[in-house]
Amino acid sequence: MTPPPTVEILAIGNELLRGEILDTNTQWLCRLVTARGGRVGRVTLLADVETEIAAAVSAAIERGVAVLFTSGGLGPTDDDLTLAAVARGAGVEVVLNEQARAMVRASYDDFHARGIIAEPGLNPFREKMARLPAGAEPLVNPVGTAPGVFLRAGGTAIISLPGVPPELEAIVSRTLAPFLDRTFGSGASASRLLTVRCNDESIMAPALTGVVARHPRVYIKSLARALGEVPELDILLLATGGDPQELQSLVDAACVDLCQGLDALSIPHRPKAAPTP
Amino acid sequence: MTPPPTVEILAIGNELLRGEILDTNTQWLCRLVTARGGRVGRVTLLADVETEIAAAVSAAIERGVAVLFTSGGLGPTDDDLTLAAVARGAGVEVVLNEQARAMVRASYDDFHARGIIAEPGLNPFREKMARLPAGAEPLVNPVGTAPGVFLRAGGTAIISLPGVPPELEAIVSRTLAPFLDRTFGSGASASRLLTVRCNDESIMAPALTGVVARHPRVYIKSLARALGEVPELDILLLATGGDPQELQSLVDAACVDLCQGLDALSIPHRPKAAPTP
Repeated sequence: MTPPPTVEILAIGNELLRGEILDTNTQWLCRLVTARGGRVGRVTLLADVETEIAAAVSAAIERGVAVLFTSGGLGPTDDDLTLAAVARGAGVEVVLNEQARAMVRASYDDFHARGIIAEPGLNPFREKMARLPAGAEPLVNPVGTAPGVFLRAGGTAIISLPGVPPELEAIVSRTLAPFLDRTFGSGASASRLLTVRCNDESIMAPALTGVVARHPRVYIKSLARALGEVPELDILLLATGGDPQELQSLVDAACVDLCQGLDALSIPHRPKAAPTP
Repeated sequence: MTPPPTVEILAIGNELLRGEILDTNTQWLCRLVTARGGRVGRVTLLADVETEIAAAVSAAIERGVAVLFTSGGLGPTDDDLTLAAVARGAGVEVVLNEQARAMVRASYDDFHARGIIAEPGLNPFREKMARLPAGAEPLVNPVGTAPGVFLRAGGTAIISLPGVPPELEAIVSRTLAPFLDRTFGSGASASRLLTVRCNDESIMAPALTGVVARHPRVYIKSLARALGEVPELDILLLATGGDPQELQSLVDAACVDLCQGLDALSIPHRPKAAPTP
């Protein structure tokens, strides 16, 4: 089995670092990558500072990350500087992209025709959203005006997405679907969730340690809760990326092993419905 | 005015990068630091990999960050390795801390006395939570068993907190309050929030650009929404860290300036109640 492609995320915006906005985009992207068998290795939240974003982009390229998602900073205002920073980090210029310009114009015309905004067509601020790193391709934004942007730099595919969640999700789910299929495959996974009548990880730890070591391809995680809420813990067992039947046998074997360990410690347990990916 | 102390956050845990858990701790810490006039410059989410966490810790120390918060990875299980990583990143050993050991024992005894857990006292997994970087101080955890940990390394105060939100919040709000007062001061701030009858940042941009340039001490941010939801945007004006009356005049002046710019573009606007910090 080849190792899963590594993914990193740069979430960009002063509003994230000031705590005004809860960054739900990152969790959404992490779930998607994990469900498809990829591995998110690092997420960085950065302010709207071009040099810092550029440095993070070039560091990710140097680390050989397969896919780098950026979220935020694609809009028309001066503090939207992700594309300039991505270009700088990748060592290319920013240039007006005619295909992107046509997309931006078409989406403003469409929003105008639907009576949502007052003015159709382009202006310099709108046109800024079509100024992409040289060599980049625009990605259709089915629900907003700023196109996503796809750029290859070294071995890294850099995918820049708007920060507004429905726009980010629409570009990834619709426009990027073929790329995700090619990069991550079908995204097969198998999982089991076990509810354990024990709220004390320190008692359960001996059972977990051995199982984790004996089943390296299965992800096993006790989901800690605040003590005292409910005297129970959930344990997730999950395998991703590969033949579905093989994944299920791996997870089943680990689950049997874990249940035996819990029985040996007299810790009651029961299966729980697995989470949707 | 001296620049505000810079803060960074390391949020640690495979469950964050796999998207199983939404990282609400980071937003909570960002709001707290911002409300007190500090500035969060960077947030990094990392998996439970000791070398990667250690590298991030030493990079933050080298950048001269004033305060580095870590969240997660303080529990009794083998994948809780934040303290080992912080020690490695700071270049010190991990040692059993007697004060922390007494805290851990006392909290398990207390949970046992209240009928919440079955076994009182210590075991090797529980004692692991008292193995701190050499020179560190434990921070009382008023609601859980893992103490927080305070370590000075170079010019950086490293504050390691459990990932369970009520525990993290209790340690910061109660145990750390004197440190926060010393580091950030009273945390005075002043703000205004303006609702603008315009859903098109590209039309509003000319008004914002000048105001931002003319009021460098005021943070001015249009909070973008998905187009089509409501034909309105909110704009936040905020100043932190300094004399409260001065902060209010700064924000008021910027607000008057912005309203004139919006009037010039015939964009309707109205004041909105300011957010609680």
